Order: sequence, then structure tokens, then C-alpha cells
Amino acid sequence: MNPILIHEVGPRDGLQAEAVVVPTAVKLDWIRRVADSGVDIVQVGSFVRGDRMPQMADTDELFRTLAKEAHDAVLSGLVLNEKGLERALELGVPLICLGVSASETHSRKNTGMGTEDAVRHIIATALEARQAGRKVQVSVQSAFGCGFEGTIDEARVMGVVTAYLEAGLTSISLADTAGHAHPAQVRRYVQKVLALDPAVEVIAHIHDTYGLGMANVYAAMEAGARSIETSFGGLGGCPFTKVAAGNVATEDLVHGLQRVGQRMDIDLAALIGVTNDVAAHLGRELPGRVYKTGPIRGTEMS
Amino acid sequence: MNPILIHEVGPRDGLQAEAVVVPTAVKLDWIRRVADSGVDIVQVGSFVRGDRMPQMADTDELFRTLAKEAHDAVLSGLVLNEKGLERALELGVPLICLGVSASETHSRKNTGMGTEDAVRHIIATALEARQAGRKVQVSVQSAFGCGFEGTIDEARVMGVVTAYLEAGLTSISLADTAGHAHPAQVRRYVQKVLALDPAVEVIAHIHDTYGLGMANVYAAMEAGARSIETSFGGLGGCPFTKVAAGNVATEDLVHGLQRVGQRMDIDLAALIGVTNDVAAHLGRELPGRVYKTGPIRGTEMS
Repeated sequence: MNPILIHEVGPRDGLQAEAVVVPTAVKLDWIRRVADSGVDIVQVGSFVRGDRMPQMADTDELFRTLAKEAHDAVLSGLVLNEKGLERALELGVPLICLGVSASETHSRKNTGMGTEDAVRHIIATALEARQAGRKVQVSVQSAFGCGFEGTIDEARVMGVVTAYLEAGLTSISLADTAGHAHPAQVRRYVQKVLALDPAVEVIAHIHDTYGLGMANVYAAMEAGARSIETSFGGLGGCPFTKVAAGNVATEDLVHGLQRVGQRMDIDLAALIGVTNDVAAHLGRELPGRVYKTGPIRGTEMS
Repeated sequence: MNPILIHEVGPRDGLQAEAVVVPTAVKLDWIRRVADSGVDIVQVGSFVRGDRMPQMADTDELFRTLAKEAHDAVLSGLVLNEKGLERALELGVPLICLGVSASETHSRKNTGMGTEDAVRHIIATALEARQAGRKVQVSVQSAFGCGFEGTIDEARVMGVVTAYLEAGLTSISLADTAGHAHPAQVRRYVQKVLALDPAVEVIAHIHDTYGLGMANVYAAMEAGARSIETSFGGLGGCPFTKVAAGNVATEDLVHGLQRVGQRMDIDLAALIGVTNDVAAHLGRELPGRVYKTGPIRGTEMS
């Protein structure tokens, strides 16, 4: 198993699904602490219209503030369209994340475009970001199934991946937006992408809707995924799908990795501290486990 | 992956951890419905002293009633000592489950005996049960770590397994009582047991204390485990360990298996119905996911 990179998406994928808008100062505190915990990437926000998604209305302000500071983690932002890219470029966002849904229905509901048009559009936007000197990551949403359509043809998913590869985009996230994935499927898809090009950085974005979240994350890692997108406390869920649950909890995955001596550089106590504060701020118990139990005493190498 | 057997331990491992005592008639209703759902084994109760564990005080009555009925599942009962065995034999319990903790501290707190004495004792009791014509299953508790001791030496665990095998006991459950297991460890332990004797029926009993429960279950299945012990709604946790959380939810695992066309003979809707009733009776949300979300529409074979 490769050493695994952790991309914390709680401030974006987690908070965009919340009914309440978290104040900018509170977000900044959480983001700063996660960004200095040893986690590799933190997704700060999404360049959507603030009037449409008030939870993300302070994305520009967050980046403007964070750009003046030094943090260990790379900061990423989600860009949905050309307008979002303009904002991200102006703000100097180091890692720009873009995506397309492999589900025709989900894609249309999300963007007004079908998958084919959306792929063309997103590739053009991604290449523009890269030409501007930014790191770029592209995703296939609803890769393992769709809340609207059910099964998504594997060939459609690999078609989007192939289009990305042909455009030279090699950081590719397979996103289980609706939580339909099962471990054998995750393993097969990751292996198929790596068979297309062994140099691809495969990223897994897994939702735990039906209880298979962590099993799917391990299947992805064992199959060669390089990076996992997780969320503090297991917060999250795509507001555009019908049934959705949170991501796998960042601190639960880091705890699991540290059980086998991996990612000992990450300050697990710091992550647990942030998640406790997130739970307290939101006023409810989150799906994550380790922030409630604390870590297992000692670390068992194996 | 072998076809997986499901052993529902909710009525025992689940309900013994609850503060409230569930009325016998209510338990009977849940047990009957699970026992006719297609699940292979249902653990009805534990032959402990009713004054010490009031949640299990009706175990004899449950077996007396169920013995007069015809159910598809095999009924099992947990036996801790000679006195318990007498009761189980008298009641005609078809599958008798016994166990020893690989943790010296856990074993002493649980039984008053260290692991070595407990192994001798439990093997004698198991052989007596078998001579009486009963099926027998033996477990290694705290096999993957202990809430009191932390790491448990792998050689101690395999020592208990070897003692079982030498006594001719070949249905062996590896129990992650404290939830310390991680997937690589589960895989290795299951493979080691099968290397000792490929004919062993390896059973995995996994607690989801630190969020790795389902990943561990998949690791066990992929490594050759034949049977998984699960609990409706993910209820459970050993009351004798310091930090404990529930088992993996029966309906979540069955849902996962049915995603790949396995165990289509199990009536998932019936399981979900029971878990909804358990949650309503206990008056709280349970850790299981699928009873809340419902199953994914359609079944995606892969």
C-alpha cells in the first residue's frame, strides 16, 4: 500500500451540506488547525454563487485571508465553471478541483449540461487553470452509482477518465457521490484507471451512505489509490443527490493508518480537537468515531 | 470470496449492552422475524446469572418458547461456564457458543481465570456439549487488542486457536471485542488460522469502535472467513471492556453482499423492519445506515 495522502474536504463538502452558515472566523480557525496538522490538502470552499449557496459565500474571503499566511497543507478550491475559475485564479488558489458527473441526470441537475458537454467544458477550464500555473485535479462524480439513475455504466465512467487522460489531466478523483460503491467495484475501478495509465494519481472520494464507506476506502487504497478525500467528523453529503450521507471521517482514517505506522507525521490529536469543535458548533453528534472514543492507546505497528 | 453465513447476535451481544431490559414478548417477536429472514444463525441469549445480567434473565424462557416453533435459522446461545452448559443442554440449544479472552486482564475480569486456565475449562465444556450432540463454536475474545492491555501478542491468540484445533474444535470465531483490529491484521489472522487448518470455519466478530468495522469485515471475508457475526442496527458492545461500540449492522452487511448478488435469499426488508422496531423500542438512532436510508433501488450485480 502506497503512503496515502489526505485531502480534507470538510470545510467544503462538509459545510455546504449544513443548514447553518458557519461564520468565517470559525471556519478560518478550523481550516488553519487542519492545515497545520500534517494533512496534505485542505479544501477551503467552493466557487459557487453565494446567493445560491450561502454556506460557501465566504470562499473568496477565506482564500484572501489564508493567502497571507503560511500553512503546511496545500489549499484547494472547487471550481464549477468559467466564472468560478476567474475568481480562483485571481485569488491565487494553488490547487483547483473540477468535476463532471458520469450520471446524465445528476450532471444536468447540477450543471444544466449532460455529461458529454460537461466533460468538454470542464477539460477546457482545467487546462486554462493549468496554463495559469495552477495544480489541477478532476473528478468523476457519481462514478459508482447515482441516486437518480441507479447503476451508472462502467464504460461511461471510464470514458470520462479517458477524456481526462487524453487531455493530459492525471490527478483523477473517483467520487462515490451517492454512496452506492461496494469494495469489489472500487477495487476494480481503481485498477482499471491505473491500467489505462499507471502514472495517474487516483483519488477516492467516498460517502458512507450505506455503511460501506471505510471498506471502500480500504479497497481504494489497496488497489493503488494515492489520495483519499475525507471530512472532519464524517461531515458531508452532496446536496444535489436525493439520499446522501457524510464522507469518511478524516480522523478515523488517520487513526486507522497510524495503527499500521503510516502517516505518523499527522497530529491526530489536533484533528480530533477540530472535530470536537465542529460537533460543538453544529450542536450534534457527528458520524466519526475516533473523536468520541479517543485514539487507541499506543500504536501497534504491523 | 466464499458465500458468507450471517450469525445475528443482536438479541445477545446487542441487548446485553443496553441499560433497559427488553420484555420477553418483544424479544421473541424480533428473534422470530430475524430467524425467518434467511439469516443463518440467531443468538438468542446468554446463559449467565439473571441477577447479574437482567437483560439476559429470560434466556431459558426464550429457548423454551422457540423450541416449540419451527424457524429457518439455527438458534445459538452463549455459554460461559459449566452451570450455563447444563441449562443449555437441558433446553436443547442447537448451537452452543463458548469463548476465552486472549487478554489475561480481560479474561480475569470476565471469568476470574487467566487465559490458560480459561482455555482448559472452555475446551472441556465445549467437548461435553459436543458429546451431548450439540454443534459447538468457540471464540477468541480480544483477539486483535484489548481495552485494558492494548496490544495482545499474536502468538497468544494463535496459541488459543491451536489449543482449540488440537481439541478438534474447528468452528472458531476471532472476536474484536475492543474494536482495535485493522484490516491488514484481520486478513493476516484469518489467513494464519486457515494455514493451521484449511478446513476451519473461521468466524469474525467485529466491533466498530474506531470506525474500521466494515473494512475489517470485508478483510475477514476476503481472507476466507466463512461466517460473520453482526447485530441488528449495529447494536452492541461488550459491557466488560472500557470503550466499546456496536457490532457491524446486520442489514448493512447483507445490503453490501446483495450489491454483488450474494445472499439474495435473505429478506433484507424483513431485517430493516426489525431494526426499525428495535430503534423505536430503544428510542434512539442506531449506528446502522441502511435501516435509515433504505436499500439502493435495484441490485447491481458485479
